[in-house]
Amino acid sequence: MQVVITAVGPDHVGLADPIIHYVTNLGANIAEIQMYDHDEEALFAMLLRIELADEQYEAACEALKEIGRLKKLSVRVWSPQKRSQKPRLAICVTYRSEPALALLRAIRDGQISAEAAVMIGNRDACRGIAEQFNIDWHRIGDKQGQVDHRQMVQLLDQYEVDYVVLARYMRVLPPAVCWEYAGGRIINLHHGLLPSFPGIRPYHEAYASRMLTYGATCHFIVPELDAGNQIIYQSTFTIPHGMKLDEVIRLGQEDNEPQCLVEGVRRVVEGEVQLHFHRVVARK
Amino acid sequence: MQVVITAVGPDHVGLADPIIHYVTNLGANIAEIQMYDHDEEALFAMLLRIELADEQYEAACEALKEIGRLKKLSVRVWSPQKRSQKPRLAICVTYRSEPALALLRAIRDGQISAEAAVMIGNRDACRGIAEQFNIDWHRIGDKQGQVDHRQMVQLLDQYEVDYVVLARYMRVLPPAVCWEYAGGRIINLHHGLLPSFPGIRPYHEAYASRMLTYGATCHFIVPELDAGNQIIYQSTFTIPHGMKLDEVIRLGQEDNEPQCLVEGVRRVVEGEVQLHFHRVVARK
Amino acid sequence: MQVVITAVGPDHVGLADPIIHYVTNLGANIAEIQMYDHDEEALFAMLLRIELADEQYEAACEALKEIGRLKKLSVRVWSPQKRSQKPRLAICVTYRSEPALALLRAIRDGQISAEAAVMIGNRDACRGIAEQFNIDWHRIGDKQGQVDHRQMVQLLDQYEVDYVVLARYMRVLPPAVCWEYAGGRIINLHHGLLPSFPGIRPYHEAYASRMLTYGATCHFIVPELDAGNQIIYQSTFTIPHGMKLDEVIRLGQEDNEPQCLVEGVRRVVEGEVQLHFHRVVARK
Amino acid sequence: MQVVITAVGPDHVGLADPIIHYVTNLGANIAEIQMYDHDEEALFAMLLRIELADEQYEAACEALKEIGRLKKLSVRVWSPQKRSQKPRLAICVTYRSEPALALLRAIRDGQISAEAAVMIGNRDACRGIAEQFNIDWHRIGDKQGQVDHRQMVQLLDQYEVDYVVLARYMRVLPPAVCWEYAGGRIINLHHGLLPSFPGIRPYHEAYASRMLTYGATCHFIVPELDAGNQIIYQSTFTIPHGMKLDEVIRLGQEDNEPQCLVEGVRRVVEGEVQLHFHRVVARK
Repeated sequence: MQVVITAVGPDHVGLADPIIHYVTNLGANIAEIQMYDHDEEALFAMLLRIELADEQYEAACEALKEIGRLKKLSVRVWSPQKRSQKPRLAICVTYRSEPALALLRAIRDGQISAEAAVMIGNRDACRGIAEQFNIDWHRIGDKQGQVDHRQMVQLLDQYEVDYVVLARYMRVLPPAVCWEYAGGRIINLHHGLLPSFPGIRPYHEAYASRMLTYGATCHFIVPELDAGNQIIYQSTFTIPHGMKLDEVIRLGQEDNEPQCLVEGVRRVVEGEVQLHFHRVVARK
Repeated sequence: MQVVITAVGPDHVGLADPIIHYVTNLGANIAEIQMYDHDEEALFAMLLRIELADEQYEAACEALKEIGRLKKLSVRVWSPQKRSQKPRLAICVTYRSEPALALLRAIRDGQISAEAAVMIGNRDACRGIAEQFNIDWHRIGDKQGQVDHRQMVQLLDQYEVDYVVLARYMRVLPPAVCWEYAGGRIINLHHGLLPSFPGIRPYHEAYASRMLTYGATCHFIVPELDAGNQIIYQSTFTIPHGMKLDEVIRLGQEDNEPQCLVEGVRRVVEGEVQLHFHRVVARK
Repeated sequence: MQVVITAVGPDHVGLADPIIHYVTNLGANIAEIQMYDHDEEALFAMLLRIELADEQYEAACEALKEIGRLKKLSVRVWSPQKRSQKPRLAICVTYRSEPALALLRAIRDGQISAEAAVMIGNRDACRGIAEQFNIDWHRIGDKQGQVDHRQMVQLLDQYEVDYVVLARYMRVLPPAVCWEYAGGRIINLHHGLLPSFPGIRPYHEAYASRMLTYGATCHFIVPELDAGNQIIYQSTFTIPHGMKLDEVIRLGQEDNEPQCLVEGVRRVVEGEVQLHFHRVVARK
Repeated sequence: MQVVITAVGPDHVGLADPIIHYVTNLGANIAEIQMYDHDEEALFAMLLRIELADEQYEAACEALKEIGRLKKLSVRVWSPQKRSQKPRLAICVTYRSEPALALLRAIRDGQISAEAAVMIGNRDACRGIAEQFNIDWHRIGDKQGQVDHRQMVQLLDQYEVDYVVLARYMRVLPPAVCWEYAGGRIINLHHGLLPSFPGIRPYHEAYASRMLTYGATCHFIVPELDAGNQIIYQSTFTIPHGMKLDEVIRLGQEDNEPQCLVEGVRRVVEGEVQLHFHRVVARK
């Protein structure tokens, strides 16, 4: 089975060696290793993707977490095959509710075979949707919407989340969080076509360029400064001349974005695509 | 009626004054004036868009062309309303035949109300299509495909062309040609989404960015160094993961590009859109 | 003499015609006309650059302003040759004082032959400098620094300003203001290399790109949506590896930016460069 | 001592495991691992940076090369400390001779403490310089300048090269070559400011943008599709208005580029900077 191991700690001395030693002694096949050393913060991270015999999985989880405890590292072991029938999603939101709502409806209607384990917001705007669908809601932001992202990670762990879905969650995840859930577990909806319109106002920028085609992009977040956009799905719509920006945004937010997120999440949870060496590839 | 006057000459001394004098004395309303002075070549150009009483049109044409003869300027007078039932098109090509073919079929089938007045190629690759549709064909390129663009302008004048359609014509029009036919008369098909992928290999660039959405753009060519893309129509298609670049290009060239050009030309010749101060606007 | 006429009004009906009529009847040579029609606001603008006999200047000023009064247009007539010995500057600021201070010192020390006619701030941060150099100070911003730019134009007119110097004035001038003072009269200091780093955080962006070279750009502001940067002067500095961003910004703000602005303003007020068809050219 | 191990092979099955096993059994500290899987070619690569006791180095070289022979991998072991007094350079060229010439003079005059081990060209244009400085010359390009880059790697190995200096070598190194010499051993001179002007005609592009500042960039080449530019040194020069492009290019090629390359190479061979997790950092 494919197993993803992530480790995050304050420096690389004593991080890579014990984990790699353990894995090589286990006789696992190493499919991918990536390491990362942040230059501004004391943050060292590693991703291992390995092939393991099914019966070794539980013991490996235990042993690696024990290494984490001993070495004071944040270690996670996860396999996309463990819960492939019903992966557990955390749906993270800020103001816009349409994409989250579309995703919850798609799950309810059996269009997407997943479980909405928890909803997390840095604002209260989408709390009503969580109530409507009877899903646990956690507000993690303060009055200004500022987030202590360690709290987010605690929630993700507590709810045993397989995938983190950023459904118009308008905060940048810090590198540490990206690494904790590295390996194709964080799915973001961006409200513009990537890589052309990466900013926070993609509708405005495309409109200022007088484009007639607008789009949204569903992609994995990869914790590398220079990593490109790991696109899972993109959808577009075309407008007539003279349409006002407000109307364009409305079309995008109410129709195109929700549809884009639903299809993107479907592709991931049904195992059609996976992250492989910073690229999204079709899973054979 | 709306009348577009263009004038091109080697310098601005004595270019603007006589034409503007004539037009103001005529009592015409001036809707737009743009001037241009190339800094590397001796090339001065002016565009006037005016409102004229219908009965003044013929006399104004004569008088302005006479000014051109006297002052050694290249002067053109044109009105989109003169031949609005059946505008005459020049279809310019290089290698790819699909967009031109789709356009000719759309004209034949009455989908676009225009007349294919002439086909112009800098290569011979599309000659057969001209023969098939019984349209005059002119090859203007030498063995390397290099073009004397004055010859192109002569042909455009000789065939009394209203609109110049660059149907995957793979040469850059020099500024002088753009000015001779300024005012929304040159329609280009670009095989990528503008403004994101402006280069000569937009499929390759979008593919290298791992995009899943590809597009084509039909736009006016505006003879300003810094002018943005004057988009008439854009169309897109989405591919699955793992599709080879060859296949993407094939889909784009054989399906998306022809459709994009046909719809773009239709919008122009049916008067749905027009160029107005460097912008494409819906014609009221 | 070279004369620049600008006119701004709510629509083009009746704007261009009377001014162009007057100018052509005057027998002036027209060197440049540019027109502009804003698509979101009711804003129409025109720039004329003409050659006029010196003795006609005063009468033309009067007549054109009278046309403005009659037609309810905002009309300005200006010549760079009228006050070429001691052009009058408005120095506009927000927080950073270093560029303004360097400019005032250069004027005091005779390095730049100009007069600091007025200082305008949307914040109070630089008021002390105005007092120190005994220059009239006007605060035009509210508590949030928001500006009524009509008030700015009134001040510029009242102080008979030749050039507007934006010395780290951190507000975007609306198109109407740019047109009122079009023709190479608005000089901006941008704290990054243009066109590569156009945003509001150019140091951060260049730093994130791990550049070792940082720069500043002094340029004319041109009131066209698509106009490129009209660069008057650029200066750069190179840093060693490992320098913190704070230190880079400090070097740039305290040393490179002030020097860049002083040299740029010097080039303009001493007539070394001018704006000519959207380009900065050396004045012969 | 710091040791860099690179391995390149046709797939990852059996590549990572034996090398990582060997290194972990050796008791070496792992400082960095990066892996790469090309999606278009069958190309798998790995970089390990480890800390090793000095006395283990020779044995580790032997053992790892033996693993390479057995597993049919291309394995290289290298340490920047092995020949730190006089690193051996391969200087690769195409047409322009100035940067190579400046580098050879700096070596001759003791400004740079390195040895020019070999000159490699895909054209013959710079052969005379190799003869003048009595350095072995190898032409690796055919009549069109096309290169079999395996031949280049053979030469680099044969001459026991520490650093590969691309002194205006106008070919793109294929990923395999970049990986063989990964870890901060390939130094490129780019004739524009990175990341703003990355193309093959940076002077033309900056000139078309009407910049007054031009630059050159000395950087490591890193074999990642999405890696940013690993800048070692940048230098710039400023031009007056009206300077012709030819003259700008001449200034850049004859003065700025050579100086940029010499300073960049000096920083590397004297150990002032090194590559560390895709970043250039000051070596402590």
